[in-house]
Amino acid sequence: MQVYTAPVEEALFLLNDLFGLDQLTNLPGYEEASADLIEAILREGAKFCEEVLLPLNVVGDVQGCTRADDGSVSTPDGFKEAYQQYAQGGWMGLAADPDLGGQGMPATLSILMNEFMGSANLSFSMYPGLTQGAYAALMVHANDEIKQIYLPKMVSGEWTGTMNLTEPHCGTDLGQLRTRAVPQEDGSYKISGTKIFISAGDHDLTENIIHLVLARIEGAPEGTKGISLFVVPKNILDDNGAPSGPNSLECGKVEEKMGIHGNSTCVMNFDGATGWLVGEENQGLKAMFVMMNEARLGVAVQGLTQSEAAYQTARAYALERLQGRSLTGAKNPDGPADPLIVHPDVRRMLLTMRSFNEAARAFAVYTAIQSDIAHKSEDEKARAAAGDRLALFTPVLKGVLTDCGFDNAVMAQQIFGGHGFIEETGVSQYVRDARITMIYEGANGIQALDLVGRKLMANGGRGIMTLFKELGGYIEERAGREDMADFILPLKRGAEDLQKATMWFGENALANPDHAGAGSVDYMHLFGHVMLGYMWAQMAEKALANEDDSRAQFFETKLALARFFMLHIMPQTTMRLKRIQAGADSLMALPAEAF
Amino acid sequence: MQVYTAPVEEALFLLNDLFGLDQLTNLPGYEEASADLIEAILREGAKFCEEVLLPLNVVGDVQGCTRADDGSVSTPDGFKEAYQQYAQGGWMGLAADPDLGGQGMPATLSILMNEFMGSANLSFSMYPGLTQGAYAALMVHANDEIKQIYLPKMVSGEWTGTMNLTEPHCGTDLGQLRTRAVPQEDGSYKISGTKIFISAGDHDLTENIIHLVLARIEGAPEGTKGISLFVVPKNILDDNGAPSGPNSLECGKVEEKMGIHGNSTCVMNFDGATGWLVGEENQGLKAMFVMMNEARLGVAVQGLTQSEAAYQTARAYALERLQGRSLTGAKNPDGPADPLIVHPDVRRMLLTMRSFNEAARAFAVYTAIQSDIAHKSEDEKARAAAGDRLALFTPVLKGVLTDCGFDNAVMAQQIFGGHGFIEETGVSQYVRDARITMIYEGANGIQALDLVGRKLMANGGRGIMTLFKELGGYIEERAGREDMADFILPLKRGAEDLQKATMWFGENALANPDHAGAGSVDYMHLFGHVMLGYMWAQMAEKALANEDDSRAQFFETKLALARFFMLHIMPQTTMRLKRIQAGADSLMALPAEAF
Repeated sequence: MQVYTAPVEEALFLLNDLFGLDQLTNLPGYEEASADLIEAILREGAKFCEEVLLPLNVVGDVQGCTRADDGSVSTPDGFKEAYQQYAQGGWMGLAADPDLGGQGMPATLSILMNEFMGSANLSFSMYPGLTQGAYAALMVHANDEIKQIYLPKMVSGEWTGTMNLTEPHCGTDLGQLRTRAVPQEDGSYKISGTKIFISAGDHDLTENIIHLVLARIEGAPEGTKGISLFVVPKNILDDNGAPSGPNSLECGKVEEKMGIHGNSTCVMNFDGATGWLVGEENQGLKAMFVMMNEARLGVAVQGLTQSEAAYQTARAYALERLQGRSLTGAKNPDGPADPLIVHPDVRRMLLTMRSFNEAARAFAVYTAIQSDIAHKSEDEKARAAAGDRLALFTPVLKGVLTDCGFDNAVMAQQIFGGHGFIEETGVSQYVRDARITMIYEGANGIQALDLVGRKLMANGGRGIMTLFKELGGYIEERAGREDMADFILPLKRGAEDLQKATMWFGENALANPDHAGAGSVDYMHLFGHVMLGYMWAQMAEKALANEDDSRAQFFETKLALARFFMLHIMPQTTMRLKRIQAGADSLMALPAEAF
Repeated sequence: MQVYTAPVEEALFLLNDLFGLDQLTNLPGYEEASADLIEAILREGAKFCEEVLLPLNVVGDVQGCTRADDGSVSTPDGFKEAYQQYAQGGWMGLAADPDLGGQGMPATLSILMNEFMGSANLSFSMYPGLTQGAYAALMVHANDEIKQIYLPKMVSGEWTGTMNLTEPHCGTDLGQLRTRAVPQEDGSYKISGTKIFISAGDHDLTENIIHLVLARIEGAPEGTKGISLFVVPKNILDDNGAPSGPNSLECGKVEEKMGIHGNSTCVMNFDGATGWLVGEENQGLKAMFVMMNEARLGVAVQGLTQSEAAYQTARAYALERLQGRSLTGAKNPDGPADPLIVHPDVRRMLLTMRSFNEAARAFAVYTAIQSDIAHKSEDEKARAAAGDRLALFTPVLKGVLTDCGFDNAVMAQQIFGGHGFIEETGVSQYVRDARITMIYEGANGIQALDLVGRKLMANGGRGIMTLFKELGGYIEERAGREDMADFILPLKRGAEDLQKATMWFGENALANPDHAGAGSVDYMHLFGHVMLGYMWAQMAEKALANEDDSRAQFFETKLALARFFMLHIMPQTTMRLKRIQAGADSLMALPAEAF
């Protein structure tokens, strides 16, 4: 049975103790985001996720979405009512602009709420998730008229949004995009083409759906330089901004997928659909990148969501299922067997998941705070520094949290033995749902290339050099502390491995870019694990400093998890470095036809 | 689209070149297994798998098995006809005793044929696979009467077999087993109880199904010492050995599973079903272990099957799909983009799969040859040495080939990007089907415990010490060879890591067995990867020695794969060692309630 309690205490620890809420409340507009208010919001959100969304998770998996002959798409039973509750609760606009009806809370809070939602019901959470991404793109690039028409309805949750990028012959390589846009006399465009893998592309949750569509204006340059972004509503609006009739677009098919059955993944056919240009002509990719960067952080957290939900489900099973005896003598001598949790290998799996989850959440929250600072701070230097971190960490988070999130869901399934392979227990769904997070919003190999090919060297490598300086300082300051040695030494080794890997790229990848490509995924994981280790060192330090007896157990658990992570997870950094230093030659030696 | 060509050349290379067919033909009974005959059988088997079984793989996945209200179970369209072809082709009895109608070929050949079948259609291959396991258990433990009644029909494929072990409250921990057997006056028993996860438990392929059932005879001791094995036919036989009417047993449910939908996984209800004791009273577990050991080698190969099929499917896609440009300049300048295979990271994934597949097949074939020697050799010492290897390698193969097989299927899926998540392309099926191999026939954590807790120290550690001596000698003899340095140095490091890990257990696990449990899975993978590296070193040596121009490309590819494996895969051995040496303390620190 799927088990999930939203980790509110963890979230509060990160905000209040580890990073300090003043980082957010010092920002203009966030002055009122007090600790009490944030706690109240998180508790209310947790309740909604546990009570309303969680029970619908299996329903969504089993029923999926269905397309009727008229092209309309229905969501699983209960999704519509849950969505209404979500919208009425004001959750969609939690971090949106108050002028547009939003609550104006920090994006960091929205990230946490999205984590709770995704753990409870990933498929459901995608409907609002895509809307928030579309909101972000329109906020940055659309003119005021478009903003006023669409955004208040999206912020209120009355309408949802989508991203239409992928076409049958191109996903990553958007330069090949073929969807056409023909300018009309009234300033609108007629959009024609086929888009695939459109999450939440059609559904019955709202009366309108606002599609953001990449297309090529007639006569535009080839490749990525000729792509523009359009807003294309499912239903055309009348002069009062109310839906008045269908646009020329339709869901042609709902895909059969491995997971996230509760979300409608649509083939969208645009047949001269009316749309309006967002931002400048031929600047669509830039606008879409805003949306994608937001979305990548969101998808990173989705990886964590499945790992967390799978962990909690497996933990419950491991405490309850009686099977075998402890290697060191019966621990439940009056029962027919000991609970699974007595077995070291079961604990290894549970601790691998949990020590990842807590550090991953810390890393994600830390990065979300950078996002808030980068968007809101009045200090230009602070904005730039936070922006550097956000840019550098986003691909790392996306790749590592989703790769590990999936691996952890598989591990949770393993704890169930044969029962994990049966759909009845619900743990297989976490595996199947988690799988997509490694693929969409840029497959993880693309994240790794973005990291080594773009982010690492951006602004002359300013971001990574600042990070090395920060890490070096952190480690050096604690070098003499015996109580921190268990954490600082492995972190130091990891940081050195990361520095050596970075230098190796610097020395080799310019002459042969394939060297960067060959080591990119290992580098991304090496980077990510150093950051997770850094989070654990900081959390351990807070734990060591605790003097509040009522929180003693909370912090003892933190120390145990930190120790496990350093001993059992961090050793991978050296392996990653060796693989990176092995370079591309052995990869490129075989001619294509010899594969 | 699923793509599969059976790797006949690879199989022939292993048998003829790498290991030498004389290892088999020198054994009594196998004199006639000439190279020509074996090649002819493999080619015929390959054809059957590619032409008959492969097209039914997706059919099985989509349709699954269905249970009618009367409890009867139907297999997917085409399975029955394919099964008839399989039986008529004499494949079921390929390695069975000629006195029982078998063809008397080496078990090694059967393992290779099972690989081809599993790659083409894993669900289908399980029906014969379980029959062969049941055959093995009856051959060793049943009396002549039972053998004569059941085995000829199983060898001919007229009847299939099953294993009934698991019950709702116990899988691994068979001591908790509750199914009862009540002795009858005629020497038979009435069997009552519920068994779950019974693969091929009921189906419409054959007129009878021979269940091997573990049950507790009334008054038997508790725990594993009171378990007996019974043969329980679906249909009771008349005096001529022909099915004459239903036994009191029924499929109560066909489980909904993550994968292998084409195989019927049944809840089996025995309600006073008539059965006959196999072997001695209360010795059932011993008999079942014969079956399980055979089955574990079979399941190990199943892991390879999904990795191989997924590799071939992903390779085809990587050669054909045009997306992005090479980092070193366009390789397909006249096309809209380069094929995926130009990208180093795509090659990394393909090479990870393929270098695993070829070494895993070598390791499995090597172990299968040990099985043939252990069963057939007239030399007692040779039998003992081969038996040691078989016992030691079986859990390693099962754990490593299925863990990596699954990971590789996931990797193949990743190469497809979004298309991999859509069921249409067929690659998701490999992931979902591969998943079960890590779980059934003893979850991989159990394999690891079997390895470190039982196999490693069996006969005073004779098996592992012999292996270290062999490995040490192999490495030392080639220490001065510059042409082998790329392979010998990483193998040496790996072998040293394995020795250190083994010593660490020796020094620590006696005082605290949890240390062995904590490191068991890492040890299994460390062991497995040293063996895979050993296979690659031997294959590379054959490649370097080749003087046949017509095979030059075959061997150049081998060398490239060997180099990749040594550089990119072997570095994990040191990481595994470090984790093992980290011990159990950080795993056992947390009280159960703190998880």
